[in-house]
Amino acid sequence: MPADLQKLVTALARRARAASLVLATAPAEQKNAALARLAELLPASTDALLAANARDLAAAKKNKLTSAQIDRLTLAPERIAQMAEGVRQVAALPDPVGEELERTERPNGLEIRKVRVPIGVIGIIYEARPNVTIDCAVLCLKSGNAAILRGGTESFHTNRMLVEIIHQALSGKSTPPSSSEALAKEDGLPSDAVQLIPTTDRAALTTLLKLDSLIHCIIPRGGEGLIRFVAKNSTIPVIKHFKGVCFVYVDKDADPAMAESIVVNAKVQRPGVCNAAEQLLVHGAVAGTLLPRLARALLAHKVELRCDQASAVILKKHQLAHKSARAADYSTEFLDLIMAVRVVPSLDDAIATVNRDSSAHTDAIVTRDAAAAERFLAGVDSAVVLWNASTRFNDGFEFGLGAEIGISTDRLHARGPMGLRELCSYKYVVTGSGQVRG
Amino acid sequence: MPADLQKLVTALARRARAASLVLATAPAEQKNAALARLAELLPASTDALLAANARDLAAAKKNKLTSAQIDRLTLAPERIAQMAEGVRQVAALPDPVGEELERTERPNGLEIRKVRVPIGVIGIIYEARPNVTIDCAVLCLKSGNAAILRGGTESFHTNRMLVEIIHQALSGKSTPPSSSEALAKEDGLPSDAVQLIPTTDRAALTTLLKLDSLIHCIIPRGGEGLIRFVAKNSTIPVIKHFKGVCFVYVDKDADPAMAESIVVNAKVQRPGVCNAAEQLLVHGAVAGTLLPRLARALLAHKVELRCDQASAVILKKHQLAHKSARAADYSTEFLDLIMAVRVVPSLDDAIATVNRDSSAHTDAIVTRDAAAAERFLAGVDSAVVLWNASTRFNDGFEFGLGAEIGISTDRLHARGPMGLRELCSYKYVVTGSGQVRG
Repeated sequence: MPADLQKLVTALARRARAASLVLATAPAEQKNAALARLAELLPASTDALLAANARDLAAAKKNKLTSAQIDRLTLAPERIAQMAEGVRQVAALPDPVGEELERTERPNGLEIRKVRVPIGVIGIIYEARPNVTIDCAVLCLKSGNAAILRGGTESFHTNRMLVEIIHQALSGKSTPPSSSEALAKEDGLPSDAVQLIPTTDRAALTTLLKLDSLIHCIIPRGGEGLIRFVAKNSTIPVIKHFKGVCFVYVDKDADPAMAESIVVNAKVQRPGVCNAAEQLLVHGAVAGTLLPRLARALLAHKVELRCDQASAVILKKHQLAHKSARAADYSTEFLDLIMAVRVVPSLDDAIATVNRDSSAHTDAIVTRDAAAAERFLAGVDSAVVLWNASTRFNDGFEFGLGAEIGISTDRLHARGPMGLRELCSYKYVVTGSGQVRG
Repeated sequence: MPADLQKLVTALARRARAASLVLATAPAEQKNAALARLAELLPASTDALLAANARDLAAAKKNKLTSAQIDRLTLAPERIAQMAEGVRQVAALPDPVGEELERTERPNGLEIRKVRVPIGVIGIIYEARPNVTIDCAVLCLKSGNAAILRGGTESFHTNRMLVEIIHQALSGKSTPPSSSEALAKEDGLPSDAVQLIPTTDRAALTTLLKLDSLIHCIIPRGGEGLIRFVAKNSTIPVIKHFKGVCFVYVDKDADPAMAESIVVNAKVQRPGVCNAAEQLLVHGAVAGTLLPRLARALLAHKVELRCDQASAVILKKHQLAHKSARAADYSTEFLDLIMAVRVVPSLDDAIATVNRDSSAHTDAIVTRDAAAAERFLAGVDSAVVLWNASTRFNDGFEFGLGAEIGISTDRLHARGPMGLRELCSYKYVVTGSGQVRG
């Protein structure tokens, strides 16, 4: 019943808010101890996890999910071990909370400190893969935030079991066999720090997205449809990227071998992810010689080329396979071995084309000309711009953040890969000696 | 006609987006030259401004606005001179754009720089005071953002004239008499950098708030009703504070004279603003002696005291005027000479009370006990927390930001007073030498 559901979700969010106030001042050791317990409990709970996962897999087969979907959903002992290793890695990262970002002393003697604090309560809305449950819970916990998780229907039973294990780790009561005395003595943290919405009913999600006095941030992870639904229905601030329509622009002064290597890597190394390139621009002055080389390399990796007229003429002359692009192809995220190809008359045209057609996610220039690179890097208004490197590097781990909760193409709060620090806000702490305003 | 209105607002936003790409790479000198021209043009346009203002004032009188509202709306030569002075002050601030925030070199040789850039297009939705038009336009321009202004009906003609003057300053054609040759030679900036919605029709506002592919941030300034309307209807990220329900907590170890001075200043120095205190908490151990002193000082400033039972008993005993508080008073922003008063049994109760009832805007503790202060400052989850200082210091100028576009109680992007840097985002600029991902 909608009214009951609303009550249930609201009560859950209230508990999350209360837990967030405890987490906000929890010392790093306490949070790390909970993470260490979780890393021990996960492999120790392999049987229970596989049993829960089997229920989801049975439903998946009944519902005729694709083999790729079923693969993403499937747990196995080594995948559980990987999860545990991921938890240990996050535990080893520095605690972002409490770091002093700035300190100023005003002429009136007031000392003003800007200090990093958790955001508060974060709602994560995601789809199938169960490891997202652990990743997000652990990143929120480490950064002192309470997490409300709303996973997909497909992994419901697996997620329930994972959150049960997280609760055990939070409670501090279950001390894994190999843990030290010191860890065992640590106090537990509130189990409301990580909660799973106990239904995949869309009405529960819609209710959640309106609780803006209790929840401070929503992070949707998944397909564009889910993300658009969340962005449209949420009155809570959302950090997101809808899609990654990423460009590689090969300038007239590009090193041909480097251009080939970067274009191929950006397109084919993992075509199904958001930082893979979908769009190729080649400067007109070199298209006649360079484009055939790039096309041959891409075709060797079974990439379908969708060309504008100028590039089609060149490829036709060299008898290289290609199709004519439709207008929509120039701003499409194919997530597949398909690439749209255009010839541009100038660097300025390349910049204008990227700013018009890209999703402002990740765009690269290949050139030996430092001045051209500078213009591109300054003029392209995207979260990550690269010079002589593959778009595939837009990634929290590749950036050295140690973890990643997502990539943002928004311009407020966080842009580009988001790690622990991007899960934090700040507050101003002012120390006086009786100052009043005149 | 709604369809025409939608077209008009969308076209305006498209022009703003195009202008924002020019502004994003405009050098500081060019932006400062436009601001210098504006500072000259404003007083030079006094007659035209007063004529436009007279039309608004005539309508205001006809519509029976209060004298306070009419005062806020009224321009005069000295107010225009103050505006010009404000423009000069912003011009003199350092340009926030282009600052390198971080730089790392990865093991693979990639150099990753995090660089401050403008947000892009900012919509400002505000009410009566015409100086907000200049303030916001100038702060957006200085930070490289295109501004779309939607002011109130009351100041419509004044705003139109102000934006006409801004356009003159942007164009660079009108060279004020005292400007140097160098300034006069500066190229102009696109006049679409600052645009005023040419109607106060609510439908235009609603259209604007949905243009999330063209506008990157909405800042509402005004009463809670306007801000709630904007937050509810916008699909664009909004930075806001609804209200300021600010607390002063007088601890058992407070210096009595300091407590009196801070409580009085926080309440009475300017009761109509968001950082004025509305709520007083006094520790039970000292309420019997300290509360009468605080009450006498507040009553001397004509403050109405709305008391809980414990504080009422004390004030009654000392024959000090007070009323009984209703539950709603404990989370009300009075914006007037009214203060709700409560006695709390402990520091922890004070912290819990603030976290429950405050608007997380500005909360202060008065105490000589450093440990108690630390607990309060860490435990109170508000944008600005103060120890032994008046809540009135939560202000961009008092914080040394040099300017203020507003105060945020959100936790994403900006929290507390927002200056030029808070009008910026960042992007990652990655420099490689042909790196690809393995």
